[in-house]
Amino acid sequence: MISKKGIDKVLEGYNQKKLVVCTIGSHSALQIAKGARDEGLSNLLLCNRKNTPFYKSWPVVDVVLTIDSYKDILSEKVQEVLRERNAIIVPHGSFVEYVGAGNILEKLNVPLLGSRVVLEWESDRKKQFQWLKAAGARTPKEFQNPEDIDRLVIVKFPGAKGGADYFLAKDEKDYSTKMIDVNLPDKVKADCMIQEYVVGTRFYPHFFYSPLDDSLQLLGMDIRYESNVDGLSRLPDSFGIEPSYVVTGNIPVVMRESLLPGLMELGRNIVKASKKLFPPGMLGPFCLEMVCTPELEFVCFEVSARIVAGTNVFVNGSPYSALLYDEPMSCGRRISREIKEAAAQDKLKEILY
Amino acid sequence: MISKKGIDKVLEGYNQKKLVVCTIGSHSALQIAKGARDEGLSNLLLCNRKNTPFYKSWPVVDVVLTIDSYKDILSEKVQEVLRERNAIIVPHGSFVEYVGAGNILEKLNVPLLGSRVVLEWESDRKKQFQWLKAAGARTPKEFQNPEDIDRLVIVKFPGAKGGADYFLAKDEKDYSTKMIDVNLPDKVKADCMIQEYVVGTRFYPHFFYSPLDDSLQLLGMDIRYESNVDGLSRLPDSFGIEPSYVVTGNIPVVMRESLLPGLMELGRNIVKASKKLFPPGMLGPFCLEMVCTPELEFVCFEVSARIVAGTNVFVNGSPYSALLYDEPMSCGRRISREIKEAAAQDKLKEILY
Amino acid sequence: MISKKGIDKVLEGYNQKKLVVCTIGSHSALQIAKGARDEGLSNLLLCNRKNTPFYKSWPVVDVVLTIDSYKDILSEKVQEVLRERNAIIVPHGSFVEYVGAGNILEKLNVPLLGSRVVLEWESDRKKQFQWLKAAGARTPKEFQNPEDIDRLVIVKFPGAKGGADYFLAKDEKDYSTKMIDVNLPDKVKADCMIQEYVVGTRFYPHFFYSPLDDSLQLLGMDIRYESNVDGLSRLPDSFGIEPSYVVTGNIPVVMRESLLPGLMELGRNIVKASKKLFPPGMLGPFCLEMVCTPELEFVCFEVSARIVAGTNVFVNGSPYSALLYDEPMSCGRRISREIKEAAAQDKLKEILY
Repeated sequence: MISKKGIDKVLEGYNQKKLVVCTIGSHSALQIAKGARDEGLSNLLLCNRKNTPFYKSWPVVDVVLTIDSYKDILSEKVQEVLRERNAIIVPHGSFVEYVGAGNILEKLNVPLLGSRVVLEWESDRKKQFQWLKAAGARTPKEFQNPEDIDRLVIVKFPGAKGGADYFLAKDEKDYSTKMIDVNLPDKVKADCMIQEYVVGTRFYPHFFYSPLDDSLQLLGMDIRYESNVDGLSRLPDSFGIEPSYVVTGNIPVVMRESLLPGLMELGRNIVKASKKLFPPGMLGPFCLEMVCTPELEFVCFEVSARIVAGTNVFVNGSPYSALLYDEPMSCGRRISREIKEAAAQDKLKEILY
Repeated sequence: MISKKGIDKVLEGYNQKKLVVCTIGSHSALQIAKGARDEGLSNLLLCNRKNTPFYKSWPVVDVVLTIDSYKDILSEKVQEVLRERNAIIVPHGSFVEYVGAGNILEKLNVPLLGSRVVLEWESDRKKQFQWLKAAGARTPKEFQNPEDIDRLVIVKFPGAKGGADYFLAKDEKDYSTKMIDVNLPDKVKADCMIQEYVVGTRFYPHFFYSPLDDSLQLLGMDIRYESNVDGLSRLPDSFGIEPSYVVTGNIPVVMRESLLPGLMELGRNIVKASKKLFPPGMLGPFCLEMVCTPELEFVCFEVSARIVAGTNVFVNGSPYSALLYDEPMSCGRRISREIKEAAAQDKLKEILY
Repeated sequence: MISKKGIDKVLEGYNQKKLVVCTIGSHSALQIAKGARDEGLSNLLLCNRKNTPFYKSWPVVDVVLTIDSYKDILSEKVQEVLRERNAIIVPHGSFVEYVGAGNILEKLNVPLLGSRVVLEWESDRKKQFQWLKAAGARTPKEFQNPEDIDRLVIVKFPGAKGGADYFLAKDEKDYSTKMIDVNLPDKVKADCMIQEYVVGTRFYPHFFYSPLDDSLQLLGMDIRYESNVDGLSRLPDSFGIEPSYVVTGNIPVVMRESLLPGLMELGRNIVKASKKLFPPGMLGPFCLEMVCTPELEFVCFEVSARIVAGTNVFVNGSPYSALLYDEPMSCGRRISREIKEAAAQDKLKEILY
């Protein structure tokens, strides 16, 4: 297990005038790279062979370090290179997926923006719900037993391929029939979550919490664009095609302003709850996956405890960031701004774990 | 009734070098505040206790004046404070809803951007349709008697909660059955509007008309994001859930360029008709709620005679405003630009009523 | 037939310090005009009488030349005016539609950005598919005989009115029934394309290929907003209304970053294939109309070999262009940048045909 003390020691060896923002070439890496560039920091992307030419082709990328497999990040050799270069790791969704929350916690001895424990909490659906509930967020009703299904539900499976296998069911019979067709190992199938399907408008607000001044910012908001469900809705009937929920992109959106005070309160409660549940809690960027009902209530079905891909919509700033900054402030840039500010205040240890 | 003469007199007492843009903290207040800031004017937001901390937390807001109830704006005490501060009121949707078009007309003795009468016309669906028709806009067919329903209709109710109770009906029987379930006072139910449901793409273009140089601008365009209907469309069948139409957000959009000349002509006709029907007519920002049919015809079902919330999508400018200005010009900023220009030309009386 | 030699000769007579970017007032003309302005070039729009006041009203437009009919562009008189003014034609979708790909190839003796042959390839669905396949793009299965229909198909007709008459069919019987109702000449009906309907998320990525440095850029991405189908999806059932697919606008979108390396490779293959099939091949802006399946595969159903209207979403730059340029770079501006660069390097002949 990587200790905070160990990370602090690594940090003490760093040249704080030559910090390098580092992540894996995927997910929101281009935005993170540009953000570092805009804030006067360097960036370094870890890429597999296949994606190396792609990432090298963008002018915002400073250095590409090619590795055979993303798991190589855990090797002592790569970690040494990163530490020598004064690297600070910014974990994004693909980073967590490729390297593994457990490995990040146990083996990655390089300073990382935000808490490592939070990544473990986010990787476990049950812990996520515990967190959401502790924050007082309304969550969809969960059904432990298929027999109890008394409304429309969505059945979700753990892991990355999840969205493709999710299915809707209106009752136990429907559930059982559709479960047979799911092409996943029995163990994964048994680990499914039967969740009330709440009908409303989806919002994915992008928050940023800074422990430096205990401030919570709203940097943007998007809607996920999922295949095939967002194509299926354009058919007059479904022709027997079952919906799937694989995220393929993101669309910008703003929320009715009268809902924003409640949204910010919810965001604050998420931070507060995280500090109690797993200190130091949630630091830096996070996102609440939610539905807004016709009664204008939020129902949260997920929390992402790091930069989300939906922020890519706002590489050049969002309608919300424009209310906060006179410069175009993406989430990626905000991350580098935080690192810069912390370094200037000699408080890097408060944001790196 | 507030007289133009009275407002002109109030204005004569103002220090025109210290004008303060004022509205209620809701709807598009953050955008309006930033717009004032960008144009070198001050801003002041009237907030209830609950929302005061939220509005104070945004750096673009200069002053928050906390009031117990939005109706307190009508009190002599608050009005005096506003006049002492050289306040110009910018009415938005929530402002009109919370204070009341009638009260604005009768009791609010503070200069206001645009005509007060127009707010009354916008508050009355029948007057809205009279206006739209006078402008030559195609409107959905209305049915006075349920027996006459010969196509898909949407039944709308007056008031803010409207969108939640709207329902679709395909014939009289469907209408009668669904009407029973509507949980509204009989008086409100009797006041419903049975409107042809026109199927097409929705557009909410944001116009700005300036009497200073008789110019009409297109500043942006959005699509309303409504709960639950925009979630319902992602279901393979509706599972018996009825759609509702509560606005929860907005999505940016641009229109096929070959439709823009017709759109601008329609906008001009709306202004022209307003001048005839209720001089001085429509001044400043307005929006036409419309559907574009596959035959590329516009069908207008509503007109908003003030800034709309959809402009929040473009706090930092829109694809259209970028064709008009070299600076990021939101609708909120355009409002303050108008005030500044009018003050510079000593023509404030032509835009404030 | 217009010869390259002839165009080169025209170009030799041009004052390269006074180049004028020219197109028809429609489609993406405002963006193209602003792009020229931003790059320090002049612009000229050819407009019919009806649209002349509209285009004159935008400050980004330098000169409007009014013509009675768009076909007048082919007249010697208009062509002479254009050549005298050092005009470079930028063809957009409406330009090709109004003037005709054949006429552009045969009769338009004015330098034009990009190849003329490519416009002919794009105008012919069969050639389009040949091109897509040569590039290794996955395309929807085509059915030569209605009897072979074994899945959901979309039946498309050639020509501009196409989108309105497209229809879905699930089998031969459905096809035959619906074909009867199509109100098009028998010759057009016979020329229909029966295409597998691939369900997924639609993406319309905007590419720019420069032969000056053999670089391919991704400048943006949109989703087409089509009437009535995008309204129909909001109905709980279709009430017997058939979908139509008339483009009325565009919505911004970004794509999951892990799909971008594959997207750029596909774009490169499109350029490569074009050079083989019809040298000099694809130069300047183009767009691939595609669906992303839940398996994260792209299926391409169209290629537009010129600026597409979806770029109007990004008049002030896109999330992707922000990764490439420090200035707001629209596709229209990129075009003028290319012209300016080519002129500076004395390589105009490599991009104008």
